[in-house]
Amino acid sequence: MTKILIVGGVAGGASAAARARRLDEQAEIIIFERGEHISFANCGLPYHIGGDIPQRESLLLQTPQSFKRRFNVEVRTFNEVVSIDRAAKRVTVRNLLSGEQYQESYDKLLLSPGAAPIRPPIPGLENPHTFSLRNIPDMDRILAALDRDQPSHATVVGGGFIGLEMVEALHQRNIKVSLLELSEQVMAPVDREMANMLHQSLVQHGVDLKLNTALTGVSLLDADPAEPEATGEFNRVSAHGGGLRLALSTGHSLDTGMLILAIGVKPETLLASQAGLELGTRGGIKVDEGMRTSDPDIFAVGDAVEEREFVTGEPALIPLAGPANRQGRIAADNMLGRNERYGRTQGTAICKLFDLAVASTGLNEKSLQRLGLPYEKIYVHPGSHAGYYPGAFPVSLKLLFSPTDGKILGAQAVGKDGVDKRIDVLAVAQRAGLTVYDLQELELTYAPPFGSAKDVVNMAGFVASNVLKGDLAICHTEAILNRRTDQLVLDVRNPGELASNGSIEGAINIPLDELRGQLASLPRDKEILVSCQVGLRGHVAYRLLANEGFKVKNLTGGFKTYQMVTARY
Amino acid sequence: MTKILIVGGVAGGASAAARARRLDEQAEIIIFERGEHISFANCGLPYHIGGDIPQRESLLLQTPQSFKRRFNVEVRTFNEVVSIDRAAKRVTVRNLLSGEQYQESYDKLLLSPGAAPIRPPIPGLENPHTFSLRNIPDMDRILAALDRDQPSHATVVGGGFIGLEMVEALHQRNIKVSLLELSEQVMAPVDREMANMLHQSLVQHGVDLKLNTALTGVSLLDADPAEPEATGEFNRVSAHGGGLRLALSTGHSLDTGMLILAIGVKPETLLASQAGLELGTRGGIKVDEGMRTSDPDIFAVGDAVEEREFVTGEPALIPLAGPANRQGRIAADNMLGRNERYGRTQGTAICKLFDLAVASTGLNEKSLQRLGLPYEKIYVHPGSHAGYYPGAFPVSLKLLFSPTDGKILGAQAVGKDGVDKRIDVLAVAQRAGLTVYDLQELELTYAPPFGSAKDVVNMAGFVASNVLKGDLAICHTEAILNRRTDQLVLDVRNPGELASNGSIEGAINIPLDELRGQLASLPRDKEILVSCQVGLRGHVAYRLLANEGFKVKNLTGGFKTYQMVTARY
Repeated sequence: MTKILIVGGVAGGASAAARARRLDEQAEIIIFERGEHISFANCGLPYHIGGDIPQRESLLLQTPQSFKRRFNVEVRTFNEVVSIDRAAKRVTVRNLLSGEQYQESYDKLLLSPGAAPIRPPIPGLENPHTFSLRNIPDMDRILAALDRDQPSHATVVGGGFIGLEMVEALHQRNIKVSLLELSEQVMAPVDREMANMLHQSLVQHGVDLKLNTALTGVSLLDADPAEPEATGEFNRVSAHGGGLRLALSTGHSLDTGMLILAIGVKPETLLASQAGLELGTRGGIKVDEGMRTSDPDIFAVGDAVEEREFVTGEPALIPLAGPANRQGRIAADNMLGRNERYGRTQGTAICKLFDLAVASTGLNEKSLQRLGLPYEKIYVHPGSHAGYYPGAFPVSLKLLFSPTDGKILGAQAVGKDGVDKRIDVLAVAQRAGLTVYDLQELELTYAPPFGSAKDVVNMAGFVASNVLKGDLAICHTEAILNRRTDQLVLDVRNPGELASNGSIEGAINIPLDELRGQLASLPRDKEILVSCQVGLRGHVAYRLLANEGFKVKNLTGGFKTYQMVTARY
Repeated sequence: MTKILIVGGVAGGASAAARARRLDEQAEIIIFERGEHISFANCGLPYHIGGDIPQRESLLLQTPQSFKRRFNVEVRTFNEVVSIDRAAKRVTVRNLLSGEQYQESYDKLLLSPGAAPIRPPIPGLENPHTFSLRNIPDMDRILAALDRDQPSHATVVGGGFIGLEMVEALHQRNIKVSLLELSEQVMAPVDREMANMLHQSLVQHGVDLKLNTALTGVSLLDADPAEPEATGEFNRVSAHGGGLRLALSTGHSLDTGMLILAIGVKPETLLASQAGLELGTRGGIKVDEGMRTSDPDIFAVGDAVEEREFVTGEPALIPLAGPANRQGRIAADNMLGRNERYGRTQGTAICKLFDLAVASTGLNEKSLQRLGLPYEKIYVHPGSHAGYYPGAFPVSLKLLFSPTDGKILGAQAVGKDGVDKRIDVLAVAQRAGLTVYDLQELELTYAPPFGSAKDVVNMAGFVASNVLKGDLAICHTEAILNRRTDQLVLDVRNPGELASNGSIEGAINIPLDELRGQLASLPRDKEILVSCQVGLRGHVAYRLLANEGFKVKNLTGGFKTYQMVTARY
């Protein structure tokens, strides 16, 4: 009889326990969870705070009792594994309620401790108005503070998934929100021009977006919350309970009634490292393809481990629910003698922000540049479904691919509809090793309410294939901005579009449908950089001009991409 | 200078013309279209009739004038190519307005004539109340008749894409609809149990669904539409204009104010066959991978040609917009000297019906049986996104795969949300040659509003992989219905579910969470067929019983699939 101990009872740990039981009815399986809850919906926490998920109980997917009944797995909540004796194959456990310590032996041990919110070394963070959000008690504390303090203003630090979801949640509660982001963009998995669509949405929704801004200090606001009616000094940032004065790297200060730290997470590796298990170069627990640590009887999964990035195979920290669940399953298989392998991780992810979705898979351009990998990129902005059927919205898609063989390196999309579907399709295509040529041929569901006969992904495939085959020479916004004297910009949109959408300074305007008649007016000694709204008419103009012997390039993604790249927030 | 003639100016023809111009500015390109319109949104026609697309003009994507301006392509509407002189490389054209005939020479000729609605040899079809829907004039005629006759009842013959879309369109106009379908199911691309969800929806929406019913005769109803107010004899089926009496194969008759024939389409091959071009075994124009007919200077694309089915490579008629557009592009390439190839066709398709979507890709079970190909099938019914986030609906997915290597043979899905996405993902997976094992590993976008950490497609991959690896023995509804005396059915749902959802006659009920304690009550000499609601708890029970040495199988897809299979409409 195999005895399996599991440290951590959320995504990876719970998946592993259930899988282990399905494989082996006799195994003894114990989960140690230092918190109160196992298998809760951690991805749902912001949505309960925002009110989209009305019932707190719906976040509690399993209880120790239900897990015992269904899987005959013993779950010890409020029990923390504090050390591992690898030689004796034994862990020491502290019961957090009684304070008692005890030991438990194992045949196989699975570490699924997750990751902890990064808490920056900023003075003053220990105060009753500052929170992070990683589990149910965190959420309960935030909800209690919202009730207690009735803040009219809140500040979120960090523009990642949880940061953006908390901005939306607080906004839905009619709280004015400031978002502080250290870098020049929110949502690090995508590139800055894609994130600019999020920046625009944040500003349009009244969020006080402060990019390139660090939190440097926190102090309690002077306030007399007991008697605002008597003093007439109602606190600006909360109806009750005072608030905080934040010092910012810009030199400004910001008064706020609630501070949410969503800077990111770091792998929980203390237990592993104290046991002498090998850590990787990125600071996570190092595991092989079978999710085995440097000790063959100890496995690790989830946010605490290093995975291999899909394109490069390099170690990476990719704290996502999907991989954690699959790794848990594979670890259970291997703890029970099978030989399953976890492959590489693309990091496919999505985030809802107001009426937008932003999603990505594979490497982004920033990473490709940092790694020095050769790439090409194209942008398209087709409708989420047939334009003549109501409810279609543009899907702004960026496709990164190998300039040599056309392999897909990564993809990013932003839009109001159909973003998840397109990134899913591209994630499968990338995983299967397809090229941009293959994207042309994909047969995707089409009826007017769902797509187009030439889907967004087909369009991206056409454009990228044209580039690789030499049927299209493209340029990017940087080339437009830094154009040489032997280059000129030709805008082939209709004059009305320039007036309403804006235009590139210094560009010549000849509408596409008049271009054929005005070729004589174009110089043959200059390179013509063609631009239209989204790149489609620009391509037709490009082909016309190239066929007529002009030197020409098309701005991929057109003026819409130009605006995304040049926007400043 | 290459001279290209194109017969037919809708999907394939228009795509080819635009692509040809982009490749060659000098080519002379002429489109002959016998109708009034080119490049119209034929997939949008039912939605304009139903009112979803309010503006008729939005269906007219291009005009001859706009096409000329943009692509310098001459479009001759109301001009029908009536014969091809292949030796002289010349076509004869009839101007349908003037009646004049003339000739036009070509270097390359592209046939994109499409397909024509099948008009069955039923007496009485020539009447003012009977319509088909293939183009704008058809749509205009239907709209005029709806205006003129104000029918209170309409009959649609044929439950394919257009038939179902017309049922919904007429229903949206508050017209009572009867749907006649010759076979035992609507929506032939999916199998009957999947179609049963559509049957259920049709009935729930008040549609008079008549399966296994042929139209055998049509006669004009006696009526005095001029003076219903005088006679007091208001026609039941239309406010004005009388109606039809339909004779049905069941012996019954049906009075109706409007008859829509949507039985299907057949390739328009007359021109090609009269020119001596080779037709294929399925009755379409035979083309090679370069879309070349048996005459190397004549190409053909779209609904008129035979494609190669994805799994078998056998000739097939797959009249869909996506393939037509891509074929047009490839034909243009090859007419201008390139060497592009069109691959096989999966027939990925989707149809909206009220609040449901039904979609499929690859082969269905009926076809696999007819072809005698080995296959296995599994069903899953997971939520379209995380169950704790509002707005999730089940996606009922049927996955067909090779029992030897796990290759995906086909997939079908029905549901209210996320059906398009899952079939798109599976269509890419099938095209890329992935197996059900690979489906387990797919990294798809996950956040609570969009999916689950284990997506529908991952779940299907887990189940199918379990089957192939021998971790799960499944059975199907037929085995439950025809069980032997040495088999018994064990339902592991909770008693309340049996009461509210129904149950399998003669099944023993032990809720999953009590099963471990009641093993002694189960016979070891019989095979236990486990059932739950969707197959998930059944799998846990299966593993428990198998690990304990019982002979056991799990009903894939559970009672929900059982209901889909056993429902009769």
